[in-house]
Amino acid sequence: DYKSLDKIIIGVVGGDGIGPAITAQSQRVLEFLLADEVKKGKVEFRVIEGLTIERRAEVNKAIPDEVLAELKKCHVILKGPTTTPREGDPWPNIESANVAMRKELDLFANVRPVKVPEEGIDWTFFRENTEGAYVLGSQGIHIDEDIAFDFKVITTQGAERIARAAFDFAKKNGKTRVTCVTKANVIKTSDGKFLNVCKEVAKDYPGIEMDDWYIDIMTAKLIDKNRRTQFQVMVLPNLYGDILTDEAAEFQGGVGTAGSANIGKRYAMFEAIHGSAPRMVDEGRDIYADPSSVVRGGAMLLSHIGYTKEADKLFKALEICGQTEKKLVMTGRDTGATNADFANYLMETIEKL
Amino acid sequence: DYKSLDKIIIGVVGGDGIGPAITAQSQRVLEFLLADEVKKGKVEFRVIEGLTIERRAEVNKAIPDEVLAELKKCHVILKGPTTTPREGDPWPNIESANVAMRKELDLFANVRPVKVPEEGIDWTFFRENTEGAYVLGSQGIHIDEDIAFDFKVITTQGAERIARAAFDFAKKNGKTRVTCVTKANVIKTSDGKFLNVCKEVAKDYPGIEMDDWYIDIMTAKLIDKNRRTQFQVMVLPNLYGDILTDEAAEFQGGVGTAGSANIGKRYAMFEAIHGSAPRMVDEGRDIYADPSSVVRGGAMLLSHIGYTKEADKLFKALEICGQTEKKLVMTGRDTGATNADFANYLMETIEKL
Ligand SMILES: CC(C)[C@H](C(=O)O)[C@@H](O)C(=O)O
Ligand SMILES: CC(C)[C@H](C(=O)O)[C@@H](O)C(=O)O
Repeated sequence: DYKSLDKIIIGVVGGDGIGPAITAQSQRVLEFLLADEVKKGKVEFRVIEGLTIERRAEVNKAIPDEVLAELKKCHVILKGPTTTPREGDPWPNIESANVAMRKELDLFANVRPVKVPEEGIDWTFFRENTEGAYVLGSQGIHIDEDIAFDFKVITTQGAERIARAAFDFAKKNGKTRVTCVTKANVIKTSDGKFLNVCKEVAKDYPGIEMDDWYIDIMTAKLIDKNRRTQFQVMVLPNLYGDILTDEAAEFQGGVGTAGSANIGKRYAMFEAIHGSAPRMVDEGRDIYADPSSVVRGGAMLLSHIGYTKEADKLFKALEICGQTEKKLVMTGRDTGATNADFANYLMETIEKL
Repeated sequence: DYKSLDKIIIGVVGGDGIGPAITAQSQRVLEFLLADEVKKGKVEFRVIEGLTIERRAEVNKAIPDEVLAELKKCHVILKGPTTTPREGDPWPNIESANVAMRKELDLFANVRPVKVPEEGIDWTFFRENTEGAYVLGSQGIHIDEDIAFDFKVITTQGAERIARAAFDFAKKNGKTRVTCVTKANVIKTSDGKFLNVCKEVAKDYPGIEMDDWYIDIMTAKLIDKNRRTQFQVMVLPNLYGDILTDEAAEFQGGVGTAGSANIGKRYAMFEAIHGSAPRMVDEGRDIYADPSSVVRGGAMLLSHIGYTKEADKLFKALEICGQTEKKLVMTGRDTGATNADFANYLMETIEKL
């Protein structure tokens, strides 16, 4: 329970590309909502520098040691997107900072809600966040120059804790079904384990039905307007969660609108689900990038630390401003609208609630 | 060149579940179109029995030896969907027969076209079909009872031949862009190799642009009506191809409507992209299953062996009958429409062309 702490420390990490600009706006809105708490010293926002691609390249590490040390002093973290280097880039081919942070802080549950009320869509995805195809992601093996190996690992413990998180959420929120998504017909060993563990866990939740589908057909089902409304809570290994949540977010207005909660026992981190969009910055289009994903992440953070009233206000304001925001996104380049404009609009909207 | 053969042998494999019923209808339509050739002895349809889940379970093998021997006597194969056992099923947990056939006959290119002319969609997917996450799919390792490992393998040769197939197709068909889809930002070793090989191959095709996207955001892009029409030819590792083609097929009317060509140097196999739908048979709904996917597979087969005129007629008829067919699918259960009805309708339509 966060409220019983003397002080809740919220770390703010800007990231790369459009990250710092949009994260700063999310922080502004949160500071506005928690102004009294900050004044009382109950909440502290602490900006953590150094999780930039330049610094990471310099130390050749996904998260520089001093940054990790700072992160570990926080209770929760608001994080902007970071650039993931890959071969051919001017940087060493180090691991994604997102992925590293999820593992280092053991943030095993990546929770991604997608809601489109007018279409009857109300999905919550529980993506396993520390293992699967990501566990040794940067440590594959080149057997020789022509053969490249990667690994996928599922553990009983890893599968069980995400399955329990999904079923607990379902139970608490009156959901009647949890859907497990794998490719256990082909990737039999690891996905087979994930599916079997989910089936075992399901036995502890008699009121909740469990079904399972393969990831390939699942991407088709999400598009089918007649059938997709049947899904409520989904639980998936890391990579399938990555894939299916990007698709799902599209129905809500794109990855630019979805937030993502990365939750562990000790820490929690909230972020945009999109990337750092270096192409946007490269093209000189850094005038206006849609900050709503990382603002939504901020709303999830508020709700997580127990500021439910403030969180609800922010969710509501995001809903109301959605339409106008889209206009800003489209026209920002020509109109000179800035990142601050959308945050201002959110705050004005909140004041009128 | 198939036409230079004394006789083209077309193997027909029914498969499981709804497979035999729908494959028989596809065969009927092909025999109708090739009636003269069959009479002349230029083409032979050869039904191959024994690729059933019962027989496979009996010999504990994805493809019984005698079936594989028969398959190898054919030039091309028309295949219905087969049931893939998994843990908890009444059968041993053997490998998928599709996957095994692709590997045994070295059918490295899985070519899946998706067309929705009225929406400007004209995509051709080149899915690598023999390695990636599928190569050791049934041979993962349980390190101990709590740790399950699977492997993903990309070879230079494997990536190169599928990349060349995609670029050759693009060149031959006047396409201007090939899009490579991976998750090379996380699965750096194997996906990184796939991407790099594609980039190398692209250099040999100066008129064709190559771009690349990650599989997660790609599933969102296919939904975006304004952007998806920019894609033409896509080349992907095995698992991403599996996932993205099911999603893509949905825009065309579902996996029930898409055909799949599995092409190697010596053999080629054509199939439905959907599964054997045991749930449909279980529920007694085997009165009418949509045969159009395996009929489309048949049309691709005709085109592959050089009967282009006949293939075009069948594609045309499939287009015309699409609407009516959907009605049959929806009402078959109550109206008593049979699988033969749709094939009859196709043949009538072809006669009028
Ligand atoms: C940027 C990337 C490493 C990350 C992931 O693959 O998890 C992103 O796509 C996400 O979904 O948060
Ligand atoms: C049935 C299954 C093994 C197969 C696959 O995963 O390749 C199918 O989904 C396909 O796309 O042909």
